[in-house]
Amino acid sequence: MTFDYPQKVIFKYCDPAGIVFYPRYFEMINDATEAFFDQALGCPWEVLHEAANIPTVDIHAQFTAVSRHGDDLTISLAVTKLGRTSLSLAFRATCGDETRFTANSTLVRIDKSGRPEPWPDDLRTALSEYIGELS
Amino acid sequence: MTFDYPQKVIFKYCDPAGIVFYPRYFEMINDATEAFFDQALGCPWEVLHEAANIPTVDIHAQFTAVSRHGDDLTISLAVTKLGRTSLSLAFRATCGDETRFTANSTLVRIDKSGRPEPWPDDLRTALSEYIGELS
Amino acid sequence: MTFDYPQKVIFKYCDPAGIVFYPRYFEMINDATEAFFDQALGCPWEVLHEAANIPTVDIHAQFTAVSRHGDDLTISLAVTKLGRTSLSLAFRATCGDETRFTANSTLVRIDKSGRPEPWPDDLRTALSEYIGELS
Amino acid sequence: MTFDYPQKVIFKYCDPAGIVFYPRYFEMINDATEAFFDQALGCPWEVLHEAANIPTVDIHAQFTAVSRHGDDLTISLAVTKLGRTSLSLAFRATCGDETRFTANSTLVRIDKSGRPEPWPDDLRTALSEYIGELS
Repeated sequence: MTFDYPQKVIFKYCDPAGIVFYPRYFEMINDATEAFFDQALGCPWEVLHEAANIPTVDIHAQFTAVSRHGDDLTISLAVTKLGRTSLSLAFRATCGDETRFTANSTLVRIDKSGRPEPWPDDLRTALSEYIGELS
Repeated sequence: MTFDYPQKVIFKYCDPAGIVFYPRYFEMINDATEAFFDQALGCPWEVLHEAANIPTVDIHAQFTAVSRHGDDLTISLAVTKLGRTSLSLAFRATCGDETRFTANSTLVRIDKSGRPEPWPDDLRTALSEYIGELS
Repeated sequence: MTFDYPQKVIFKYCDPAGIVFYPRYFEMINDATEAFFDQALGCPWEVLHEAANIPTVDIHAQFTAVSRHGDDLTISLAVTKLGRTSLSLAFRATCGDETRFTANSTLVRIDKSGRPEPWPDDLRTALSEYIGELS
Repeated sequence: MTFDYPQKVIFKYCDPAGIVFYPRYFEMINDATEAFFDQALGCPWEVLHEAANIPTVDIHAQFTAVSRHGDDLTISLAVTKLGRTSLSLAFRATCGDETRFTANSTLVRIDKSGRPEPWPDDLRTALSEYIGELS
């Protein structure tokens, strides 16, 4: 199962070259991840962050085709690895049939003192339903 | 030879967890790259972008330790590969002796119609002086 | 008639104090304005900007209550003045019954050489339906 | 006495129209205010925010001329009113002899529970030296 996040390329994401400024893609990736926890896992980040943080520790992205103002993107997300305290995610953004970028990230759950902390059982169960590959 | 870019962690870069929001690190990486072209290569981006664009096509970052509001970072940059139309860069951000993140990016020079275009000779010469590894 | 734009307060908008960083409110105001042109006026910005720009020339905002991560805001928008080449807008953001901010902006339509340019008739007609006050 | 903050218009601040995207001006205003506390008042925000917050409650800006990629701005700041718990600031951004924007903001010092809190005596003394008008 994958999670799909719609993202229109609005004015604020575009640079003087008329295309998405790539640091904004990482905002979109983060927004998609937040929506995944909220909408797919039933774990809103504003609740999650009361007890823990989930910093991203590694991210690798390939920008394969430019996106322009007005493009309707779909950012698809799957869980590629679910560790005891870590989580690896894959992303693919498409506009129609064209892939615009792919990315892989790893984040870690830590408690408020910075120590790695296992995923709670209910969240682990919800995450495990999204383990797979992006088609 | 490497290029060093100072970057204080100011308020706007920090998230509710009190640490740098990682998409902002990519803004810093882009800012460091722009300063490298301007200050080290003598090729300000506002001039470069009149004739060409240099989209980032691949970037991989490892966030090894968190950065907090007020931290004084140094972002060091080196050229790891200089292709006919591409450029690969390595980055390391440190605060004192501690590495906060490392990153590797590849960007491509394209003309205004989107076709890859060789680096001009003077810019190639300037870039070649920064080929090396980050210590 | 007013235009309502839903805006959840997501992670990226919040600062180390756990509340919305106020420059992000201006991103939201701009996003609401873009959505107003697209959804209410039938004039997507990516089309509008092919022939013209509409820089904001004046904006005044009052932040009357803080917004926190997870809050569901509604940003309401009305046209307060429709000039030959200018447009004044009023905004109010609420969370339930509580007003979080109000703002008034003025923008001007200019052609690509920077000269003020009248609103096209169809856009003027569409805008005039939203002239009014925010209740 | 006024405080001057240099700000080059770098790539990330510019929009598809090739000019500064106005919400970024509010980031610059906030950055200038943070630098004022740090460099002029000897009160770094990372220290100040340990005990208090200083949300902006009102801001009004006029964007009188566009700024383009590469422009070297100077943002000048003066204290226009120093209340018991509030602070009003005036800003003017210039590029050479041309004014690009002016702004007036009011912020309030509050304690961690959200109650207005008087400025400490040493900070009040430091702030009072910058009371005046922008020439």
